[in-house]
Amino acid sequence: MSIRRQFFSWLLFFFPVLVQAQPADSLQIRKIVNEIMVNGQAYQNLRDICRIGPRLSGSPQAEKAIELTRRMLQQAGADKVWLQPCLVTHWERGAGETAYLVDSAGTKFTLRISTLGNSMGTDGKDVCGELLYINRFDQVDAMGEKMLRDKIVFFDLPMNPTHIRTFQAYGESGIARRNGPSLAAKYGARAVLVRSLASNVDAYPHTGATRYNDSFPKIPAMALSTQDAEWIAENMAKGKKFTACLRNRAVMKGEVLSYNVIGEIKGSVYPEEIISIGGHLDSWDLGEGAHDDGAGCVQSIEALRALHNLGIRPKRTIRAVMFMNEENGGGGARAYLDSAIAKGEKHVFAIESDAGGFSPRGFSFDMGDQAFAQTKKWAHLFAEYGIHEWERGGSGADIGPLKKIGTALCGLRPDSQRYFDVHHAETDVFSAVSKRELDLGAAAMTALIWLVSEYGLTLQ
Amino acid sequence: MSIRRQFFSWLLFFFPVLVQAQPADSLQIRKIVNEIMVNGQAYQNLRDICRIGPRLSGSPQAEKAIELTRRMLQQAGADKVWLQPCLVTHWERGAGETAYLVDSAGTKFTLRISTLGNSMGTDGKDVCGELLYINRFDQVDAMGEKMLRDKIVFFDLPMNPTHIRTFQAYGESGIARRNGPSLAAKYGARAVLVRSLASNVDAYPHTGATRYNDSFPKIPAMALSTQDAEWIAENMAKGKKFTACLRNRAVMKGEVLSYNVIGEIKGSVYPEEIISIGGHLDSWDLGEGAHDDGAGCVQSIEALRALHNLGIRPKRTIRAVMFMNEENGGGGARAYLDSAIAKGEKHVFAIESDAGGFSPRGFSFDMGDQAFAQTKKWAHLFAEYGIHEWERGGSGADIGPLKKIGTALCGLRPDSQRYFDVHHAETDVFSAVSKRELDLGAAAMTALIWLVSEYGLTLQ
Repeated sequence: MSIRRQFFSWLLFFFPVLVQAQPADSLQIRKIVNEIMVNGQAYQNLRDICRIGPRLSGSPQAEKAIELTRRMLQQAGADKVWLQPCLVTHWERGAGETAYLVDSAGTKFTLRISTLGNSMGTDGKDVCGELLYINRFDQVDAMGEKMLRDKIVFFDLPMNPTHIRTFQAYGESGIARRNGPSLAAKYGARAVLVRSLASNVDAYPHTGATRYNDSFPKIPAMALSTQDAEWIAENMAKGKKFTACLRNRAVMKGEVLSYNVIGEIKGSVYPEEIISIGGHLDSWDLGEGAHDDGAGCVQSIEALRALHNLGIRPKRTIRAVMFMNEENGGGGARAYLDSAIAKGEKHVFAIESDAGGFSPRGFSFDMGDQAFAQTKKWAHLFAEYGIHEWERGGSGADIGPLKKIGTALCGLRPDSQRYFDVHHAETDVFSAVSKRELDLGAAAMTALIWLVSEYGLTLQ
Repeated sequence: MSIRRQFFSWLLFFFPVLVQAQPADSLQIRKIVNEIMVNGQAYQNLRDICRIGPRLSGSPQAEKAIELTRRMLQQAGADKVWLQPCLVTHWERGAGETAYLVDSAGTKFTLRISTLGNSMGTDGKDVCGELLYINRFDQVDAMGEKMLRDKIVFFDLPMNPTHIRTFQAYGESGIARRNGPSLAAKYGARAVLVRSLASNVDAYPHTGATRYNDSFPKIPAMALSTQDAEWIAENMAKGKKFTACLRNRAVMKGEVLSYNVIGEIKGSVYPEEIISIGGHLDSWDLGEGAHDDGAGCVQSIEALRALHNLGIRPKRTIRAVMFMNEENGGGGARAYLDSAIAKGEKHVFAIESDAGGFSPRGFSFDMGDQAFAQTKKWAHLFAEYGIHEWERGGSGADIGPLKKIGTALCGLRPDSQRYFDVHHAETDVFSAVSKRELDLGAAAMTALIWLVSEYGLTLQ
C-alpha cells in the first residue's frame, strides 16, 4: 500500500466522526464511495482485461478473459465463483478486408471500412457495382428494384447531433446498420456500405451487428468511416459517380460453447433473493472493448470487492455477472435466464453497465410502479455524487431477458457524449477511460445494490 | 455546407412545428442548443487556437492568439471587436530545466519536472541539497529551521480522491504549490519540489503559479510528475535517502503590454446593460491550453456566433471577452474592471468558463439572493440538457473583480473528473477535448445569457 493510500485510508477510517450526524444510509454510501475512490481496483482490472486484446465471442481472447475475470472475482472476495455454460455466436472477420471506389476517370480511392458483425463474406473476391447514395431509410421501398438492382448501396444516416442523449441518435440512425443489408438485398443490391454509427467525424470505422432477414439473400455489409462517408456524400452531391468494390473473408461459424463468469456474495438474511450486477465480457474485434464493455465488467467486480473489503455482508445475495456474447448473439443473456428458471431462482433486481465507463449521470429503471417509487426515495442520497437522472427507461441487453421472471431492472446511465466516438471502433481502448469516471460509476452502482440488498424491492 | 449539415439544418427549421406547444423560452433555448450542436464552430476554432502552441502571457504565441481570436469574433458576427490594453506578467521558463536525485550508492535518477510558473531560476546551475519529504503542510512550522535548513523540500500532497468535485481537492492540496516555496524558504530551504496537482498518476508534471512572500528569499520551485512523487514516497518510506539537484533558467521579466480581446453585440433595448461571457486566452507554456482555457474562449465566441446566426438580437449588450494573463498575474481581469469603472459601464451579469471543455453539469452563482432566486426559476429549462447543478459558488478568476461594481457572477460547471488529469500539463491538447462536450457547454452558457438578456437581473 502506497503512502498515498495509507493517508487516505486513514481518512476513511475517521470519516464517520468527522462529519455531522447523518442518516445511516448516507454514511454507508459515503463509505462505499470512498472505498472505491481510494482503494478501487476497477481501473487496474480493466487494464489487464484490455491487454488481452479484443474479445469477440468464440475467440481465444474471449476464453482468456473468462479465465482472467474468474480469478478477479475470486480475488475480489466472492464466496463462490463459477462459469455458466452458454452457446455463443462465433463469427470471424477473416483477413484482408478491403473496399475501394473507382470514379469515372478510373481513379481509385481506398476506403476505411470494417465489415459489419455477422455479415456474410465475399470469399476474398471483389464484389463490385455502381454506388447508390441513400440518406433517407424510408425512401428505400419507393426506390425499389429499379434503383437498387445490382448496386452497392451506401446508407449515409448521420447520428442526429441535436439529441442530447446520444443513444437516441444511435437508435434512430442504427436502422441502416441493423436492417439495411436485408432491405437492400430485397431489391437486388449486391452489397451495402453503412456510414459508421459515430457521433464524431474521424477516420475509424465502427462495426456492429447487422441482422439478416431470412427471406432475402444475405449480402455483405461494411461500415465506412465517417470521414469517408462525408467525402463520398460531398462528391456525389456534386454529381460524381463511383463504382464500389468490397472484399473480405468474413465467415459465420455457427454456435460454440462459451461461458458467463459469475461471482457471488451470499446474502446473510435473504440468501434466496438475488441481485445481479453485470456487464458483458465479449467485445467487438477492433480496439480493446474498454468502454464496451470492459468497463461494465470491472465495475461489477468492483462492487463485490468494495463490499467485501468494507466487511459489509449484504442481506441479499449479490452476483457479479460477466455476460458473454452481448454483441452478436445474446447467448450469455439467454443462458443466465434459462438457468434462473431451471433452478427456480428469485431474481429481485438486476443492474447493468453497458453504456461506457464515463461519469455517471443517473440510472434508468425498468420495473413496476411501486418498485420505482421505492427507489425514488433513495435518489436524494445520490445527488452529492453527481447522480441526478432517476428516470424510467431501458436497462441492458444482458439483463433484459430477466423481465420474463419479474426482475426489477436498472441501467447505469453514464454521460453519453463521448461514447459513440469510440464505440465498436479501434479507438475503444484502455487509454480512453478515465479512472475517476470509471470508479464513480462503480460506486454509484454499488451504492444502489447495497440499498436494494438492505431494503429489498416490492416487485409490482 | 455538407449534406449532413443541410439535413439537420432542415430539422432546425421545422423543429418548432414538430414539438408540442411549449413556452417560448423553452423553444428559444432549443433553437440555440440545436444551432450550436449542428452548426457550431467552437471545435474548429479551438483546433486553430491550439495549433498556435502554448500561449503564456507575453509570448509571441499569445500575441498570435490575440490576432486570431480578434478575427474569430469578427467572423462570429460581433458588431464591434476591439483589443483592450493590459499589463501582464512576463515570465519565461528558459531552456534546459532538469532535476535529479542521487541515492547513497551514487545512483542518479532523472525526474520528470516542470518549473512552477513565476518561480525563480537557478541561472543554469545545479542547486542541490538533501531531500526532505513532507506530506502534511501543517507540520512545516513545527519542523522549522532545524529540519528544513539547506534542504530541498519535497511536498507530497496528493489530491484527495474522495472529493467528488476535483476542484475541492485541487484547492486543498494546492497550498503546497502556492505557499510551499516561501514557507520552506522561511526556514532556510534551498529549493522546493511539489507533487503535481493531478488527479491521476502518470509521467507528466503539471505546472502552475507559485506565490512568493516578499518577506522570505525567493527559492526555485518545480512540480514533479505524480509517478515520480509516488516512487520517491515509497522509497523514502523504506528509509532511502536522496540528494536532489534542480537546475533551470527561469526568469521573471516583469510586466509587458498585452491585450484582452473583446467582441460585442449591442443590446437592442438596454444597450447600456452589459453581459460578459468569457474565458482566458493565455495558457501555461506546456501543452496547448485546450481545456485551460482555449475551451472557455471558443465557447464565448460561439455564444455570439450562435445568437448572430439565429438572428437573435439580444435586448442587452452581450460581450465575449478573451481575458489575458489569468494564469500568472491577472492583468487582463484588472484591466477589464478598470475600464468598466473608468467608463462608468453597467455590468449586470458575467459568466466565465474556466473549468475545462467537458460536459456541463450546471452553474455556480455568486450574486445577491434576489438575483439568485430569479435565476433559479430558469433551472428547469436546462434539465433536458443534463444541467442539474444550480448552486451558489465561485464564478471565475477573470470576472471575479467585477464583484466590486456589483455585477452578478456565474461560473460554468463542467464535469470535473478528467480536468486535473491534463490541467497545466503537456497533455492539455486539442485531442483531449470532445466536440459534443465543448458544444454543450457553449450551448448552456448561451442559453443562460440569452435569458439574462431577455429578462435582466435584479442586482440585490
